[in-house]
Amino acid sequence: MIAKSEKDVKADEVSEEGASNVTIQWLIDSKIGAPNFAMRRFVVGKGGYTPLHKHDWEHEVFVLGGEGALVDENGNELPLKKDYFAFVPPNEIHQFKNVGDEDFIFLCIIPIK
Amino acid sequence: MIAKSEKDVKADEVSEEGASNVTIQWLIDSKIGAPNFAMRRFVVGKGGYTPLHKHDWEHEVFVLGGEGALVDENGNELPLKKDYFAFVPPNEIHQFKNVGDEDFIFLCIIPIK
Repeated sequence: MIAKSEKDVKADEVSEEGASNVTIQWLIDSKIGAPNFAMRRFVVGKGGYTPLHKHDWEHEVFVLGGEGALVDENGNELPLKKDYFAFVPPNEIHQFKNVGDEDFIFLCIIPIK
Repeated sequence: MIAKSEKDVKADEVSEEGASNVTIQWLIDSKIGAPNFAMRRFVVGKGGYTPLHKHDWEHEVFVLGGEGALVDENGNELPLKKDYFAFVPPNEIHQFKNVGDEDFIFLCIIPIK
């Protein structure tokens, strides 16, 4: 078993098209033996957002700080802030964006294919 | 998709033998359509602990607050505090316990069988 701080994990810029001002840390993944799902920590800076997209896997999200929104296919925005969680089913269009002045920080867990 | 606060989810006392002063909230599970893994939020009160046990599924943990320890089969204690994460592989003996004065709070994600 392992236990360590998120500060021990490198943050990479998300370079995917449609993303702006987002970093990702892969906290737990198959490299450390996770068999089924991976835990990532995202930091979306002021004005930033993830791609508006869909894919065939789900997201399970927990918000650690800041103020954000989860955008759906119709442009509706579900509010997200500290201690909120979100579930995005497979194949639903979605986007996470920062709507506040501070970093919007959340965990996002996905299945390992 | 859904987005809401952990405060909207009922907390149940963990009555499993070997647990003391622990509550669980099932934030995301198969009842809301999660196909692969479930997100739970645990609050371990002062002096509390989860069972020292093992099982054939993994834990992926992220600490939200307080001071705790992850105990292994030899009684070694890995420290856990805010913004720490932990991975417990399947079939490893483990226990989470509060070693501080405040509530020890963490997310624990498990596969859905």
